[in-house]
Amino acid sequence: MTKSTVYRPLCIEDAVQLARNIEGVFSPTASLRCEEIGDGNLNLVFRVYEISKDTTDSALSPRRIIIKQALPYAKVVGESWPLTLDRARIESQALIAQGQLVPHLVPKVYLYNPDLALTVMEDLSDYTIMRAGLMQRNLYPLFAEHIAEFLAKTLFFSSDLGLNQQDKKRNVERFINPELCKITEDLIFDDPYTASPNNNCDAAIEDELKKLSQDCGLQFEVMLLREKFLTQAQALLHGDLHTGSIFITPESTKVIDPEFAYYGPMGFDIGAIIANLILNTISQEHWSADEETRRQYRAYLLQMVRDIWNQFESRFRSLWDNHVVDRMAQTDGYQDTYLTRVLQDSVGYAGCKMIRRIVGLAHVADIDSISDLHVRERAQRTALFIGKSLVNMNRRIQSIDEVITACEHGIAGVQA
Amino acid sequence: MTKSTVYRPLCIEDAVQLARNIEGVFSPTASLRCEEIGDGNLNLVFRVYEISKDTTDSALSPRRIIIKQALPYAKVVGESWPLTLDRARIESQALIAQGQLVPHLVPKVYLYNPDLALTVMEDLSDYTIMRAGLMQRNLYPLFAEHIAEFLAKTLFFSSDLGLNQQDKKRNVERFINPELCKITEDLIFDDPYTASPNNNCDAAIEDELKKLSQDCGLQFEVMLLREKFLTQAQALLHGDLHTGSIFITPESTKVIDPEFAYYGPMGFDIGAIIANLILNTISQEHWSADEETRRQYRAYLLQMVRDIWNQFESRFRSLWDNHVVDRMAQTDGYQDTYLTRVLQDSVGYAGCKMIRRIVGLAHVADIDSISDLHVRERAQRTALFIGKSLVNMNRRIQSIDEVITACEHGIAGVQA
Repeated sequence: MTKSTVYRPLCIEDAVQLARNIEGVFSPTASLRCEEIGDGNLNLVFRVYEISKDTTDSALSPRRIIIKQALPYAKVVGESWPLTLDRARIESQALIAQGQLVPHLVPKVYLYNPDLALTVMEDLSDYTIMRAGLMQRNLYPLFAEHIAEFLAKTLFFSSDLGLNQQDKKRNVERFINPELCKITEDLIFDDPYTASPNNNCDAAIEDELKKLSQDCGLQFEVMLLREKFLTQAQALLHGDLHTGSIFITPESTKVIDPEFAYYGPMGFDIGAIIANLILNTISQEHWSADEETRRQYRAYLLQMVRDIWNQFESRFRSLWDNHVVDRMAQTDGYQDTYLTRVLQDSVGYAGCKMIRRIVGLAHVADIDSISDLHVRERAQRTALFIGKSLVNMNRRIQSIDEVITACEHGIAGVQA
Repeated sequence: MTKSTVYRPLCIEDAVQLARNIEGVFSPTASLRCEEIGDGNLNLVFRVYEISKDTTDSALSPRRIIIKQALPYAKVVGESWPLTLDRARIESQALIAQGQLVPHLVPKVYLYNPDLALTVMEDLSDYTIMRAGLMQRNLYPLFAEHIAEFLAKTLFFSSDLGLNQQDKKRNVERFINPELCKITEDLIFDDPYTASPNNNCDAAIEDELKKLSQDCGLQFEVMLLREKFLTQAQALLHGDLHTGSIFITPESTKVIDPEFAYYGPMGFDIGAIIANLILNTISQEHWSADEETRRQYRAYLLQMVRDIWNQFESRFRSLWDNHVVDRMAQTDGYQDTYLTRVLQDSVGYAGCKMIRRIVGLAHVADIDSISDLHVRERAQRTALFIGKSLVNMNRRIQSIDEVITACEHGIAGVQA
C-alpha cells in the first residue's frame, strides 16, 4: 500500500501490506494471513496473523494484530448516516492515554494513522467478550480487582484531582466528541421517556414504555443525570463501558473500544459496568439449573458489583491520599463528599442504562436471548423495576449495599 | 502597515494605518489622531479618532475606534510572565458571540486579526467605567435591566438549554482557556485560604487572613465552588464580570473585556456583578454625607442587586419557556430546580469574590481608596463577614431576599 493522505477503506491486501510495515511484530519473511472480522456497521476490523509450521489458527498464532478502521457512516438505527472519522482519533488517543496508566488492562497500540482513520493494536482473539462469558456463567475471580483498578486510575489521573488543571483543560479540548455523545444523549437520556421511533420494546411490555413516558418524578431524576452528562467535565471516560467492551479470561481483563471517550461524570463509566452485571444477574432466571445453583450465581454477580465499588473506592482514596495535585482538594470532608457523589452518580447512570437496554434501541443479548417469552417478559419487567429504583434513589444512596438490596428486592419481589 | 503574518506590538503609526484600512469608519481623506491609552500590563490599547473642524477631542469625535492588542506577557504579580496571545482570539470571539445575542450591550467589533492578536472595536470613551461611576455615587436606573438581559441571553443561548448540544460542545472546545482560568483558580479559589505570596492583605486585618486559612467549613464550601468552576461547562461566561468590565451611562451599558471567557457555571458571572455591587455598598460607609443619605444610596445598591437577580430569573424563565431546545428540559420541576441552583451558585461565587478582593492579590478601588484607615478596616471586615456568610449559606439559599438580609445584617452588625 502506498502512503496516502486521502481516506479510503482498506481491502485485505492493503491490510496485509500495512501490517507487514509495523516494526517488531512479524518476521520479514513470514507468511501473513488476514481476515475481515468486523460487523461492517461502524468499522472494518482486520485480523492479520503469521502462519508458522506450528500454527495455522489465528487465535494460536503468537504473532497477530488487529487493524481497526473507522467507516465514514454508521448503521445504528437501520439506515446509514454519516459519522465522523474523528472517532478513530479519539479511540486511539484514549487507548494510548489508558495504556499509559493501566498498560495491562488495555490492548497495546502499535500505530494510529489519522489519514486512514485506523488503529493497529494487539489482537485479543484468545480472550472472550465478557458478555458472552457471563452468559456461559463463567467465573472471573480477578475481574472486580481489574476493573476497579482501570476505573480508579483512568478516572483519577484524568481529573483535576490527579492531573494539572491546565493540562486537563487541553485534554477536555482533545476529547470533545459531539457526534458520539449525541448517540448517548438520545438513546439513554431521551428516547426511553417518549414515543421515539428509535425505541425497541417487546410488545409484551408496552405498558412499561407508556409508564416511563408518564413518570414525571423519574424523568426529573433522568434530566438531572442528563444535565450532568452534558456539562460535567470531571474525568476522561471510556464512555461505553458495558460487558461487550471487555475482553476477558479468568486471569486477564482488557478494556476495548473507547470511541465514545470524552470528559464526563465518573459515575457514567462505573454505572455502565454495574448496570450490565445486574442485567446479567436478572437474566440468570432462565437458566435451566436448580434454583439454588441459580441463586448462587446471582449472588456471585451481585457480590462482584459490591466488590467493584468497594475496591474502586479504596483505590481511588489511596490515589487521592498519595497523588492529589490540587491543594484545595485536601480540605477536610471533601474526599468523603466527592466519593459519595460518585457513588450516587454511578447508581443513577446504572439505572438509566438498565432502562434503555430494555425499551431503547440497543438491547443486551443476556436478556434478548431468553427464548421463553414469559421468562423474558419477567426479566424485562424486573430490569425496569430495578432500573427505575436506582434512578429514583440515586441522590439518596450512601452505600453500595443499598444497591445490592434494591437488586435483591427487585428480583425477589417482582418475580415472586 | 504591510500585512504581516508574524506578531509584533504595534506602534502609533501602525495603529493609524490599520485604522485607515477599516471599511466604513473613517472618510478616506480624514485626519486621524491616535493615542495609546492602555496600562501596558496586559494589552496595548490605541484610540484612533478623526479630527474635524468641529472636534479635536477624542470623546467628541463622531468617528473613533479602539485597537486592543494583546501583549505576550502579563504583569499580574509584579513581574512579567508569558501569557498566551490566544486570549485575543477568545476575547474577540466572545465579543462577537455576545454581539449576536445582545448587540446593544457590547462594543461593536470591526476586525479581529489573529496574527497580530488584536481586535478593532467601537470606542466607548464617552462612557464611564461603572466602578468609577459608583464611587461617584451616580445613579444608573437602567443598569439592572441591561445586565439582566446580558446575563440571561448570553448564558441561556450558550447553554445546552438554548443551543443544540452538539454545537455547544464545539463551542466548549473553542473557548478552552487554561491560562486565564488558572489566574481565577489561584487568585479566587486558592490563595485567600493559605499563606500565598500572592495575597495582599492590609496589616490591620491579618487576623482575618489567618482565620480564613483555618476555617475548614468555609474551605469545604469554597472547594465545592472551585470544583464546579473546574468541571461544569454550563454556559459561555464572560469570566471577569466586575464593575471595572462595564462601560456605563445612565442610558446605556456596554460589557467589555471578555478575555477570561470560557464555559463554566452561570453563577460565576452573576456572582461577580453581585459581589462588586455589595463591595461598593459597603464602601459607602466612608462617604462624608449624613447617615440617612448614605443609607439611601446603600439601599439603592442593594435594591439593584435584588432587581438584577429577579429580572435575570424572569428573563431566563421566559427564554426557557419560548426557546428551549432540549426536549427533556421541559420535565416538570426542572426549571425551578435549575434556577435555584444558579441562584445558589451565584451567591457562593459572590462570596468568594468578596473575600478575594479584600485579602487576595487584586483589590477594588471602592474600598482601597478609603483614606481613613479605621473606616477602611471596618469596611474590609464587613466585606469579609458578608463574603463568608454568602459562601457558608450558598447551598441553602432559596431567594435573593436572603442575600439582601445577610448584607444588611453584615453592614449593621459588624459596623455597629
